Amino acid sequence: MRYTQGMTQPNERRYREILEHAARLIFQHGYEATSMQEIAESCGLTKAGLYHHIKTKEALLLAIMHYGMDLFEEMVVNKVVSIADPLARLRECMARNIALVTHDTSKEVTIILHEHQTLTGDSQREINSRKKRYVQFLEKSFRDAIDRGQLRPVDPTLAAFSFLGMVLWTYKWYRPEGRIAAQQLSDGMIELFFEGLMPRG
Amino acid sequence: MRYTQGMTQPNERRYREILEHAARLIFQHGYEATSMQEIAESCGLTKAGLYHHIKTKEALLLAIMHYGMDLFEEMVVNKVVSIADPLARLRECMARNIALVTHDTSKEVTIILHEHQTLTGDSQREINSRKKRYVQFLEKSFRDAIDRGQLRPVDPTLAAFSFLGMVLWTYKWYRPEGRIAAQQLSDGMIELFFEGLMPRG
Repeated sequence: MRYTQGMTQPNERRYREILEHAARLIFQHGYEATSMQEIAESCGLTKAGLYHHIKTKEALLLAIMHYGMDLFEEMVVNKVVSIADPLARLRECMARNIALVTHDTSKEVTIILHEHQTLTGDSQREINSRKKRYVQFLEKSFRDAIDRGQLRPVDPTLAAFSFLGMVLWTYKWYRPEGRIAAQQLSDGMIELFFEGLMPRG
Repeated sequence: MRYTQGMTQPNERRYREILEHAARLIFQHGYEATSMQEIAESCGLTKAGLYHHIKTKEALLLAIMHYGMDLFEEMVVNKVVSIADPLARLRECMARNIALVTHDTSKEVTIILHEHQTLTGDSQREINSRKKRYVQFLEKSFRDAIDRGQLRPVDPTLAAFSFLGMVLWTYKWYRPEGRIAAQQLSDGMIELFFEGLMPRG
């Protein structure tokens, strides 16, 4: 829905196609290395024709990131927000976030991760405030679990960013054809994060 | 020492100055957004003058990354490799790696983290093989600690990349002026990673 932000005419299908092509090029080559000329060519448009649909290259990146955030919220946060038990909520949230990175790899989500310093001004603030809502959701869940005595009293912010680092870094090293299967990664990482590395008993 | 790779003349001091200027620009604006023209201007050189010292922009990035890896190895791996106890080695390694990211933030190390897909061909293989040596050092240390019964039998590769994700993601969110002090982050993350989140006893 937010994918329609920055539209300059009602031809929404065409606009979505442009974002799809642009996201593919930016995913493959990076934002700076992708020119509006290349995006236009990939859509079968002239550069002037492209500018008819989208005002600036930065508006294009912003729309792609909003779409990535929509997808992320739909597949991760919205699926776990109603789980009453905070520890179960956090474990399921980690499982779904790992699945999004390893299994349903989305070029838009990867662009959010990789181009984290590319946007400027208001555009950057818009995306950062959506990211911040996820961090706050995690912090709140850690706080709830600590209050219930399910987790020991760690700093919820540090726990939230440690969770995110472990999970999101996966996009840099995980390969579907590698030795570690996606399910094994997910189960192993959840256990490692929540239960640590010390021998039991 | 590797910073001298790709030299086209023996004027090493001048060459190092160029790498220093280039690293600052690439750190601030990204590799793709930085032109050889801008690097030349920042060094007080003409573009032709710059090309006298360095053959290509990619050779410049490779030299900067080798320097970052030198720095990283000197400040992290070389300082812990001789610790006989594998668990103590891993804990000290995490502390030193966090310190490098939070305290002695180096633009060259940040460039290695951020521009992880920018190099191509042989240059990419060169840097990747140096990164891989660090992953293998961590895997070996986890394996040793598991063999000694210091850690429970987790997958050493998964443990290594979880360690790296938690620690290296820090460069994306940690701010020296923020609520969490560097020492607090380091102590908290080491405890969280090795001991997990479950209540004790």
